[in-house]
Amino acid sequence: MRHPTDPGRYLLSRSRAPELVQPDDILEFTLDSQPVKSTDLRLYGERVIHGGIYQARSDVNAVCHHHAPSILPFCISGMDLKPVYHLGATLGEKVPLWDARDDFGDTTLIVAKPEEGASLARALGENWIVLMRRHGATVAGISLEELTFRTIYTARNAALQIQAHMLGLVSPLNRAETRLAGEYNLRPGPVMRAWEYWNARLDKAEGGGAQVRKRAPRKSGSRRTKKRRR
Amino acid sequence: MRHPTDPGRYLLSRSRAPELVQPDDILEFTLDSQPVKSTDLRLYGERVIHGGIYQARSDVNAVCHHHAPSILPFCISGMDLKPVYHLGATLGEKVPLWDARDDFGDTTLIVAKPEEGASLARALGENWIVLMRRHGATVAGISLEELTFRTIYTARNAALQIQAHMLGLVSPLNRAETRLAGEYNLRPGPVMRAWEYWNARLDKAEGGGAQVRKRAPRKSGSRRTKKRRR
Amino acid sequence: MRHPTDPGRYLLSRSRAPELVQPDDILEFTLDSQPVKSTDLRLYGERVIHGGIYQARSDVNAVCHHHAPSILPFCISGMDLKPVYHLGATLGEKVPLWDARDDFGDTTLIVAKPEEGASLARALGENWIVLMRRHGATVAGISLEELTFRTIYTARNAALQIQAHMLGLVSPLNRAETRLAGEYNLRPGPVMRAWEYWNARLDKAEGGGAQVRKRAPRKSGSRRTKKRRR
Amino acid sequence: MRHPTDPGRYLLSRSRAPELVQPDDILEFTLDSQPVKSTDLRLYGERVIHGGIYQARSDVNAVCHHHAPSILPFCISGMDLKPVYHLGATLGEKVPLWDARDDFGDTTLIVAKPEEGASLARALGENWIVLMRRHGATVAGISLEELTFRTIYTARNAALQIQAHMLGLVSPLNRAETRLAGEYNLRPGPVMRAWEYWNARLDKAEGGGAQVRKRAPRKSGSRRTKKRRR
Repeated sequence: MRHPTDPGRYLLSRSRAPELVQPDDILEFTLDSQPVKSTDLRLYGERVIHGGIYQARSDVNAVCHHHAPSILPFCISGMDLKPVYHLGATLGEKVPLWDARDDFGDTTLIVAKPEEGASLARALGENWIVLMRRHGATVAGISLEELTFRTIYTARNAALQIQAHMLGLVSPLNRAETRLAGEYNLRPGPVMRAWEYWNARLDKAEGGGAQVRKRAPRKSGSRRTKKRRR
Repeated sequence: MRHPTDPGRYLLSRSRAPELVQPDDILEFTLDSQPVKSTDLRLYGERVIHGGIYQARSDVNAVCHHHAPSILPFCISGMDLKPVYHLGATLGEKVPLWDARDDFGDTTLIVAKPEEGASLARALGENWIVLMRRHGATVAGISLEELTFRTIYTARNAALQIQAHMLGLVSPLNRAETRLAGEYNLRPGPVMRAWEYWNARLDKAEGGGAQVRKRAPRKSGSRRTKKRRR
Repeated sequence: MRHPTDPGRYLLSRSRAPELVQPDDILEFTLDSQPVKSTDLRLYGERVIHGGIYQARSDVNAVCHHHAPSILPFCISGMDLKPVYHLGATLGEKVPLWDARDDFGDTTLIVAKPEEGASLARALGENWIVLMRRHGATVAGISLEELTFRTIYTARNAALQIQAHMLGLVSPLNRAETRLAGEYNLRPGPVMRAWEYWNARLDKAEGGGAQVRKRAPRKSGSRRTKKRRR
Repeated sequence: MRHPTDPGRYLLSRSRAPELVQPDDILEFTLDSQPVKSTDLRLYGERVIHGGIYQARSDVNAVCHHHAPSILPFCISGMDLKPVYHLGATLGEKVPLWDARDDFGDTTLIVAKPEEGASLARALGENWIVLMRRHGATVAGISLEELTFRTIYTARNAALQIQAHMLGLVSPLNRAETRLAGEYNLRPGPVMRAWEYWNARLDKAEGGGAQVRKRAPRKSGSRRTKKRRR
């Protein structure tokens, strides 16, 4: 997530499997993805995904890059990912598909160079999720809670869309429904109801990172946040 | 569920993720979905689904609105959901598909206004489950136990039907089999065998709501209950 | 399972969800499915499945009736279930599909009458598994361990076959391979290796029935057992 | 795995379900798959898979034979398994499909004779994974960590490819991407990040074999290892 008081920095774990991340693993980075304090710890190669988007989008305060199994089939086949149920409306009206081949030819498929992060951020544009061909997805949010909500429900939307294709014609939300349902579900009520649940799930799993998880939800934010959370 | 002694009221949790609901979270509502005692707690926006059905159907004593992953592909594709195995006969002979667009045009897809709840209840009609286009399902029962049984096994029926479509022709139960198998499986024997199992599962999960779960099963009920539970 | 010392009787739980069954729940039945001691406990309606097969097949010492999710799509679509990997060879060379409609017309789909159990046993014939249209499967074995092995791996075979159909042509084992691989995998070595694992899984789950599970595996049995377990 | 100090021997458990294997179960074998110390313990029939590959491939220090559910549909249908996301690049450029019928006609499908192990090793050739028709897969690695990484992510690649086929055209990595992404992901950083996670998962599961799991990762190895792990 973007640093809560310094918008020119962001927070990201050292390179570690997400389930194992502890509070001490969280490091501070400049927007060009350099660690603020020099460190010998191994860093994620793909942190430029985060830096590139925070640079390009001042309204974005949290970013998630993932390879959820339900999302990948869209990245492999090129099938359009569409909002197919109300919670999937958090996809937004358009889901771009970025292909590293277009700008960079044959690569490792890893987004590790500043220009690769910038290219991906351009593909994201004003949208909230970008699919990455043969790789995964990157999701943005105005807050950590919104990001989590969008990441989880867009992955579920993808799983439902795959199953619906197996039954025949897929009839997605139209543009107006997508906008209306997206705004409705991203209000504090639905988001914090889910947030309480996910916290409870993490507590049951006795996983790490409890201090991070239990921080108070953000009550205020950018102009956009205030506007949306009516 | 409908209030056990006052049929003009119903019980529903405050707005909270179902897994977290505790006995104190259960509130009492009038059939027009107003809380009996004024409260500052956040309430579910979709409680009119419940109120609308209790108003329209005096034989219904329990309602469940859900978004089970196996049901949604039918709500997205419009494919008919059919009873394909004996326990799926609890679907009943007809499963209507309600589309908010028909009566209300572009919406949030959330059933939050009294007229939306009434429209959905009309679509349900005399049936026991109604699919909601691009949203989920709403299920009704004459008791909480019957409702739980129907909700779980109709979701499984849906999952089986999807897989069967992948193999080719789907051969569902006919009308007579649906009626006979539905009546057989909704007798107290099969329902309470499953009820004991679900209670044990919840106990193992150490989830909340134990007091609610452990209440004695209803031994008597509406005329319909007595008639059916032969 | 058939009674270990009296082949004219069989053992079956009172009507209870399998996960909850305790040693005291196991009752003794005659082969015409009457309890040996009169009881007020609720009994499974479908125990005639067991009695019917023990009557018809003296080589069968254990029977399992189930509704595994991977098996049902074959019962719904009528697609042939075939051995598609070595462990699936325990299906045997032929898997009949029984349809209650053929002998009994419109029913509850429940096999509850002696003549229904007998009809199903005839459909099973000399095979080891019979699919039941729109209902489930019934599996037979010469011992409880073989039955468990066959039930689990034939359900997995079904899941694999469904996925293989999604990729295109399904190329099953031929008859000779089915016979050879079936015999190989039903020897004591492979069966008891899996049996030890399943016991460990049950112990971890802290489920009931520990005494039953921990009984020593049968070292001897019918002539068929001795012949096969070379 | 190959013996860490004697390349003419390998280590393999006695015949036991993998989840239950304890350190004392690990036995030492010669490359022709005979136990170094005579033993009464039951041994895996298929150990010639391991011996055959260690004999044929001096660069291979770890072998895994498995029947993962996502891999089998490719073994049944004959559909080509392709790298479809960056982590799937660990498949390598070619995935041969070996069919026991070609060399041996009708068999048990079990690879139990030295000549069967040798035939499979020839089919593997210079590649890193070989599919076995109607049976499973065998995977090779230059270290236990690389093997684990490849085995897990190739199984996930298979699951994703199946889902992608359901959406339409599958667009895999090209040869250059496969080589580049494979090399990138098999460096110590990505592999040991996953290795730490899998160890944590096993610790949570309180499974056996802790001593084996916690050994220090290999810091050096064959020339190939040194070259690759730059």
